[in-house]
Amino acid sequence: MPLQAAAAQPADTAAPITTDVVVVGAGPVGLFQVFELGLLGLRAHVVDALPHAGGQCAELYPDKPIYDIPGIRACTGRELSERLQQQAAPFSPVYHLGQQVEQLQRLADDRLLLTTHTGTRFAARSLILAAGVGAFVPRALKVEGADALVGSQLFYHPHQLGHARSRHVVVLGGDETAVAAAVACATAQDAASTTLLHRRDVFTGPDALLAQLADLRAQGRIQVVAGQPAALQQAADGRLQALEVALPDGSTQALHADLLLAYLGISPKLGPIAEWGLELERKQLPVDTARFATAEPGIYAVGDINTYPGKRKLILCGFHEATLAAFAVAEQLSGQAPLLQYTTSSSHLHALLGVHSAD
Amino acid sequence: MPLQAAAAQPADTAAPITTDVVVVGAGPVGLFQVFELGLLGLRAHVVDALPHAGGQCAELYPDKPIYDIPGIRACTGRELSERLQQQAAPFSPVYHLGQQVEQLQRLADDRLLLTTHTGTRFAARSLILAAGVGAFVPRALKVEGADALVGSQLFYHPHQLGHARSRHVVVLGGDETAVAAAVACATAQDAASTTLLHRRDVFTGPDALLAQLADLRAQGRIQVVAGQPAALQQAADGRLQALEVALPDGSTQALHADLLLAYLGISPKLGPIAEWGLELERKQLPVDTARFATAEPGIYAVGDINTYPGKRKLILCGFHEATLAAFAVAEQLSGQAPLLQYTTSSSHLHALLGVHSAD
Repeated sequence: MPLQAAAAQPADTAAPITTDVVVVGAGPVGLFQVFELGLLGLRAHVVDALPHAGGQCAELYPDKPIYDIPGIRACTGRELSERLQQQAAPFSPVYHLGQQVEQLQRLADDRLLLTTHTGTRFAARSLILAAGVGAFVPRALKVEGADALVGSQLFYHPHQLGHARSRHVVVLGGDETAVAAAVACATAQDAASTTLLHRRDVFTGPDALLAQLADLRAQGRIQVVAGQPAALQQAADGRLQALEVALPDGSTQALHADLLLAYLGISPKLGPIAEWGLELERKQLPVDTARFATAEPGIYAVGDINTYPGKRKLILCGFHEATLAAFAVAEQLSGQAPLLQYTTSSSHLHALLGVHSAD
Repeated sequence: MPLQAAAAQPADTAAPITTDVVVVGAGPVGLFQVFELGLLGLRAHVVDALPHAGGQCAELYPDKPIYDIPGIRACTGRELSERLQQQAAPFSPVYHLGQQVEQLQRLADDRLLLTTHTGTRFAARSLILAAGVGAFVPRALKVEGADALVGSQLFYHPHQLGHARSRHVVVLGGDETAVAAAVACATAQDAASTTLLHRRDVFTGPDALLAQLADLRAQGRIQVVAGQPAALQQAADGRLQALEVALPDGSTQALHADLLLAYLGISPKLGPIAEWGLELERKQLPVDTARFATAEPGIYAVGDINTYPGKRKLILCGFHEATLAAFAVAEQLSGQAPLLQYTTSSSHLHALLGVHSAD
C-alpha cells in the first residue's frame, strides 16, 4: 500500500518547512543519525514526542548504567544522550520536541509531507524513522469524557504545572513525578487545594521528597486519597467540577477538582506510523542492510523500529544502521555515492566539526 | 577451495591450545569482539602481529583525534584502544601479541588448526578474522642477502635495541622511531659507532628529540648519511661487515656495520590469510550481514577485512559486525540462538562484568 497522496494545499495554509531530511525520534540512534548526516553535509530536523531528547535511554533508564557502548565502560542513559547531543551539536539540528508525528503523505513532486500533532509540517525529500518502539506517550486517564478535557483541565506533562494557581488540583499517580507535582502545587504553584490520588497510600521518590510530602500532609496542605478514578462530574457547559473516586471499601468519594494532573506512567506507541501504509513485520519496518531503506522511496528506518535478518535491538547496532542510512540518504539526494572521509584526517570534516586540523 | 586438511599430529609435537574461539587482530574491532563474546559467556584467544593491542588505531594515528565514535566527541587512537582493552578486561582474553598468523588447516573433527609464525597453535571451533587491512609488518630492507640476517644482525622492531652495545650500528630511516633509536644507540645503548642513514638529511620527530640528534651529530657521536642502501658486504661466514650506500652524487660509500636497525615504516599485509583458500573479493572476505560469516564453516570476518553490500570501512560499523558475529559464534557453538540480554538490567551480565546490580 503506497502512501496517501497529499491534497492540494489550500491558499490560506502556511507553507511547510522545506528540508532535505527529517529524523523521527531523538533517542540515541536518532541523535547519532544527526551526526552522521552532518558529516555528509546534511542538516536535519528532528521530531520527538517527548519534551526532551534521549528517548528510551533518558526516559526509561536515565540513571542506570549501560555497559555495552563501545569505548565507554559505563554510562547512564542520561549521560549517553547528553554525550550524543553534544556530538551532534556542531551540525545544529532543529529539534521539534513534544510533538508526535501524525500524518505522512506523498506530495505531487514526490517529496514527503509530514505533519505532527501540533500542526508542524515538513516537506522533505527523505525521512529517517528512528522511532524505537514508538512515541513515549503518557498513559491516558481512562474515564469517560477525559479526552475532551486534555489541554484545558487535564494535563499529562509535568512541565504544565503552571495552570495550578488558585485551582482545586487532583494529582493522579504514585511515583516521583506525581509526588513532586503535588508538592509543587501545594507550595510554589499556590493551588487552592491539592489532592494526591493513588491506588494505594504508598509513594516512591527520593527520601527528601517523601519527607516533604509527609510534612505537607501533616499540615493539611496535601490530602492523600487511596482509590481509583471512576467518573467525572461536569457542569452543563462541560466544565469539570469533581472527580469521583472508587475507594477500596467499595464506596465512592467525590473530589472537588477543576484541574487534573495525571502522571500514570508512559507507554510507547507506534501510533500513527503504523497507519501510514508502510509494510510492517510484527510492528517493525523491514529494511535492507546496505541502505536501511524501507520499501517506500525516501523512507529509511534505523534502530529498534526496523527489522532485518540477524537484527538485535542494541543501541550500538543502531549507530551502524544510522551511518549507512546517512550515506544512502546523501546518495539519494545528490545522485551519487558520497566519498567516505575519515575524521582523523579530513580537514573538510574538521571544518564541519569546528575543530582544528593538526599535523 | 576448502581449507587444507591438517596432517595427523606427530607424537612428539605439543598439543595445540584448545579453545572455542580465536580472534585474529587486536585492533578496536577485535577488542570489542572480545567484549561481545564475553557477554555471551565465551572467552577468546587473541592473536596480533604487533607487539601491542590497538591495531591501526594505535599504530597509524595514536595521537590523532577520532571524532566519530558514538558518544565520544573526541579521542585519540591510543585512547580508544586503551578504553576498549579496559572494557574487554573483565573477560580475561588471552593475548598472543607479536605473532603473525601463518597456517590454517581443518582438523579431522572439523575444528580449525591455526598456527602462528612463532609456532603457537590453536585448535578452535571458530575463528573470527578482525585483521583489518592485514598484519602491520615492518617494511623489509630490500637488499640482497638481508632476509638471512633478520634476528641476528638485522632488526625491524624498536624494542630490539638491546643488541646495540659495542656494535657498529647503522640505523635506517628518517622518522621519530629511527631518530630515537639512533639517539639511544649513541647514548644509553653504548654502541661502538652509530650511523643514521636516510635518503635525505631531513628528519621528523618532536623538537626535543631533533635537538638531541643535532647535539650528538655536533659531538660526532652520530654520523648522518644521506643515501640509499645498495648492497651488503659480508665475510665468508656470512657475517655482515658493511653496508654499501648509493649517494645522491652517484658514488658509493661503505658504512662499517655489524648491526642494522631498519625502521622503514610499516605496511599492512594480508599475508598468509590470502593463501588459506578463503574466497576473496579485492583482498576482502565476503560475509553475510546476519552472521558476518564467510563461506567457510566456523570462520567469521569483521571490520575492515570483510565486505558486503553497503560496507563502509568505519570502526563503528565493525563494532556492530563484531556484535552480530558474537551471537552467530555462540549459536554455532551451543546449537541454539542465545538470548539477548541488556547490560542495563541483566544481573547475569552484571556478574560477568563484575559490577554490582542495583535497583
